[in-house]
Amino acid sequence: MEHYIDVRPPSNRTRSLTHASPLEVSLQAALDALGDPVRRRIVRELAGGPDWTRACGTFTHLPVAKSTLSHHFAVLRNVGLLEQRDEGTRRLNRLRRAEFDDRFPGLLSLVLDEERDVPHDGRP
Amino acid sequence: MEHYIDVRPPSNRTRSLTHASPLEVSLQAALDALGDPVRRRIVRELAGGPDWTRACGTFTHLPVAKSTLSHHFAVLRNVGLLEQRDEGTRRLNRLRRAEFDDRFPGLLSLVLDEERDVPHDGRP
Repeated sequence: MEHYIDVRPPSNRTRSLTHASPLEVSLQAALDALGDPVRRRIVRELAGGPDWTRACGTFTHLPVAKSTLSHHFAVLRNVGLLEQRDEGTRRLNRLRRAEFDDRFPGLLSLVLDEERDVPHDGRP
Repeated sequence: MEHYIDVRPPSNRTRSLTHASPLEVSLQAALDALGDPVRRRIVRELAGGPDWTRACGTFTHLPVAKSTLSHHFAVLRNVGLLEQRDEGTRRLNRLRRAEFDDRFPGLLSLVLDEERDVPHDGRP
């Protein structure tokens, strides 16, 4: 039976994932994606750990509904910031840091430095 | 009567202009300001000429109402991207390029390069 494993199609969940390359993404789309504070937080949390270790299900501490969280992940994937793959019931993530940085130099660094870079008047 | 000229208060129009330093501005505010394509176009047009040469009245070719245009200029001023001063009936502009670039390295360059940097699929 082992040869059947190799030709088995990917699960419907994995097949439904569409990925964009950062090279196809406009500045407008990138600014729209990173204009949301929850999405910037997801990006920062992913940058804080190794690739493919954080599942979407580990972000439920964020103050948004589960459906909103799914939308945020889809937006990040569609601007080439995120690669995702399913392993069993878990959807794992990789931040496409180098690729995004090549396309939009400096933008991701601003997001990653945001929390330690509070403006002079103390506003977040 | 000449000494009266020196002590004359600035006009109400000039006095009403509030300026923010980029150092006081959050990344959220900067992304919100530059998330609008008309505001990015204003920034690019200002970058294309010397400081203090473009008056607000020279932007009427942009496809927005005059009141909307005034709002866009106020938003750019409030995130430290724009310095303005009144000369007679003209409101002149200076792009605070170096100051903004110090606060948000790379962000302004992405905006200035946007028009010649079309993504691979040809979308704007």
